[in-house]
Amino acid sequence: MKIHYLDNSATTQVCEAAADAAYKMMRENYGNPSSLHKLGINAEAVVEEARRIIADSLSVEANNIYFTSGGTEANNTALFGATQALKRRGDRVIVSAVEHSSVYESAKRLSEFGFDVRFAPVDKNGVVDIDALKELLTEKTILVSVMTVNNETGSIQPIDRIAKLVHKRSPEALFHTDAVQAYGKMPLKPKKSGVDLMSISAHKIHGAKGCGALYIRDGARILPLLCGGEQQKKIRPGTESAPLIAAFAAAAEHACSFSDSSCNMEHIKGLNTYALDKLQTFDGVSVNSPADALSYIINISVKGIRSETMLHHLERYGVYVSSSSACAKGKRSYVLEAMGLPDDRIDSSLRISFSKYNTTEDIDALIEGLKSGIATLQRR
Amino acid sequence: MKIHYLDNSATTQVCEAAADAAYKMMRENYGNPSSLHKLGINAEAVVEEARRIIADSLSVEANNIYFTSGGTEANNTALFGATQALKRRGDRVIVSAVEHSSVYESAKRLSEFGFDVRFAPVDKNGVVDIDALKELLTEKTILVSVMTVNNETGSIQPIDRIAKLVHKRSPEALFHTDAVQAYGKMPLKPKKSGVDLMSISAHKIHGAKGCGALYIRDGARILPLLCGGEQQKKIRPGTESAPLIAAFAAAAEHACSFSDSSCNMEHIKGLNTYALDKLQTFDGVSVNSPADALSYIINISVKGIRSETMLHHLERYGVYVSSSSACAKGKRSYVLEAMGLPDDRIDSSLRISFSKYNTTEDIDALIEGLKSGIATLQRR
Repeated sequence: MKIHYLDNSATTQVCEAAADAAYKMMRENYGNPSSLHKLGINAEAVVEEARRIIADSLSVEANNIYFTSGGTEANNTALFGATQALKRRGDRVIVSAVEHSSVYESAKRLSEFGFDVRFAPVDKNGVVDIDALKELLTEKTILVSVMTVNNETGSIQPIDRIAKLVHKRSPEALFHTDAVQAYGKMPLKPKKSGVDLMSISAHKIHGAKGCGALYIRDGARILPLLCGGEQQKKIRPGTESAPLIAAFAAAAEHACSFSDSSCNMEHIKGLNTYALDKLQTFDGVSVNSPADALSYIINISVKGIRSETMLHHLERYGVYVSSSSACAKGKRSYVLEAMGLPDDRIDSSLRISFSKYNTTEDIDALIEGLKSGIATLQRR
Repeated sequence: MKIHYLDNSATTQVCEAAADAAYKMMRENYGNPSSLHKLGINAEAVVEEARRIIADSLSVEANNIYFTSGGTEANNTALFGATQALKRRGDRVIVSAVEHSSVYESAKRLSEFGFDVRFAPVDKNGVVDIDALKELLTEKTILVSVMTVNNETGSIQPIDRIAKLVHKRSPEALFHTDAVQAYGKMPLKPKKSGVDLMSISAHKIHGAKGCGALYIRDGARILPLLCGGEQQKKIRPGTESAPLIAAFAAAAEHACSFSDSSCNMEHIKGLNTYALDKLQTFDGVSVNSPADALSYIINISVKGIRSETMLHHLERYGVYVSSSSACAKGKRSYVLEAMGLPDDRIDSSLRISFSKYNTTEDIDALIEGLKSGIATLQRR
C-alpha cells in the first residue's frame, strides 16, 4: 500500500542527498576529525563545512554552532549549561508550560536541584501569556526558555518580543529557544532576534536521527554537559559524528527552505489550506492549532474517537499521523491541557504534520480514512 | 597512494554491512521508534534487535543496554549518573590515572562539585597498582572507574580482580569500566566480572561515529544525564539514532570477534608479532606497550624525533598512525607520564593500532616509513 506519511514532526525520511553524504563519510572519508593526519583533516574539513552551512542557515557565524546528538541533548546542554554557569547570579528559571519534554523535564530537574523554576502559562492558542511572563521576570532570573514553534500544535511564539522583554527585565538571564520544529520551516535569525541559545535537530528536516546543534551567542557562557576531549572547544567533547553532521548539512541545503518566499513554504501552505478546507467540512472535527500556526502542523480532535483508535484506523489507509508527540508514547498531552482544552478534545487529538514531499494525494487519503473512521468508530 | 591505516584506535572505517544498515534505516525504515504506528514499530524492532545483538556480545540481557551518542556520553552518564544517585551514601570517587579524557575530566569536574576524587596510580606497564587502590577504597567510596584497555598503550587492567576488590571493600560503590578499546577485541562479560557499568562505542569496531552504549547491571541505579521523553526507560531520553544503532549491531556481528579463539584475534596477534619483530630491530625505537598488552595497540617511541614530525613523515608513505590519543589533539600524554616514562620518550611516542582489515603489507609500509624517518629526521 502506498505510504501517506503525515507524521513529519515526529521524524522525517532522510533525503537522498543526506543519506548519500552520511554513507560517503562512513565508507570513504572515515578519519577521526581530531586526528592530526590527512585522513583526520579530510573528515574535519567536512565537519567544518557543515558547521558553516548550518551557521549560514541561521545567519550566524560557524564558531557559534556546536553539534550535539540531537534536540534533546541541545536542550539539556542549554538548560543545565546556562544554569551551571550563572547559578551565582540568581536562581530563577522560567520555561513555558508547553515546552517539549526535553526542556520541561530538565526544568523539573533544575527545580529538584534547588532552582526557583516557574512555568509561564499560555493562552488558548498555546502562545505564552506575555503579561504573566512579565510578572515572572525578575532580576534573579538567569534563564528563560520558550520554544519557537510548538511540536504538537504548530503554535508560533513571539520569540523576538520575548527575547527583548527578557533582556530588559532580567539582564543576567540567557534566553534559550528550542527551535527544533521551526528550523528549516521558517526564517530564523537568532542573533538578530536577541536569542542567546537555540536548539535545532537534523531528523525533523530530512537529516538523520542522532544529530542536532546548539547555537551559542558570542559571549554567552555556558558550562558543558559532557566532559572529555578537546572537540568543539570542550563545550561538546566526544568524537563528532561526521557522517550524521555531513547528512545534517546536506539536508539543510537540499531539503529545507530558509525563506518565506521559497517554494517549500508555498507548497506547505497549499497543503495546509487544502487539508483545513476538507477537515472543516466534517461534523465533529475540531482544529486545535491556532489559525496563525506554522503550516507544517495541524492538530485536530475527532469527537468521540480516542487518538490511538483513529491512529490505527488510519494506518489501514496507509496514513501515518500521531497522537500528541512521539516522545510521549501515548501519554496525555500537557500541551493541550495548558491551552485549556477539555479532556475529551485532548483524548481524541491527532497531529498531522507535513514535509515538502507530501502531496494533496496524501491529504485525500487522510480525509478518506477519517471519514470512514468517523462513520464506523464513533461512540454513539 | 595506497592507504595504510594504522590508527584504528582513533576510529575505524565503517564496514559495508554497517554502512548499508544505516543507509537502509535512513531511506526505508525511517519511522520514529517511539511512534505508535507501524512505521514507528518497524524502526523500534530494529533498535530492539540491535539491543539484543549488543547484549549478546556482552553475555547480558537486552534490558541492560542503553544506547548513547558514543563512548564519551556513556562514560559521562556512568560517572555523573552514579554519583548523583549515590551521593547520600558517600563522597569518594576513584578513577585510574590513565583513564580516557571523558572519564578523567568528568572525575575532575566531580571534584569541583565537592566529591572526594582520587586518582589510582599505575605501574610502569600502565596497570593499576592494586595495593595503592586497596588503600583508596573506603566505605565512603561510591564509584570506581577503571578502563578495561588503555587507549594509548593497550595495557589491560585486571578488571575482574578490581571489581571483586571494590565490592568487598566498598559495598556501596558501583564499579564502572570504560571498555571502548576492549569491546569486540577481547571477550567481555561484565555480569560475570562483577562490573556494574560498562561503556562501549561503535566507531572503534567499524560502526559509525555518534553511537555507543552503556551496560547497566540489574539493580545498579544511576540517574540519567539527559532529561526528556520516555525513550530507553528515561535513562537515556531522546529519539534513538536508529540508523547508527542498526550500524552498530551490524558492525558487532560482521566486523568483530567476541572470543579469543576467533580468527580475528589470531590475525591481530600475527600482525602484532610481525610488527614487534621488525620494530625491535631498529636502533632508537622503544616499545612503550607492555608485553601483555592487547595486540591491537603498539605504542612506541622513536628516539629524537617528535611524534608529530614522524606522524607527518609517515603520511608520505600512506601510513596513518597517531601521537597519543586523537581526542587530545596533540596534547602531551598524561597516560605515558603516569607510567613514569621520561619526557623524551613521551614527546616521541606514536600509537600504531590495528583492525582486522590490516595486513602485513601495512606494517611493511610503516617500517619503511620509520626507517627513512629515522635516517633523515633524527636530531644528531
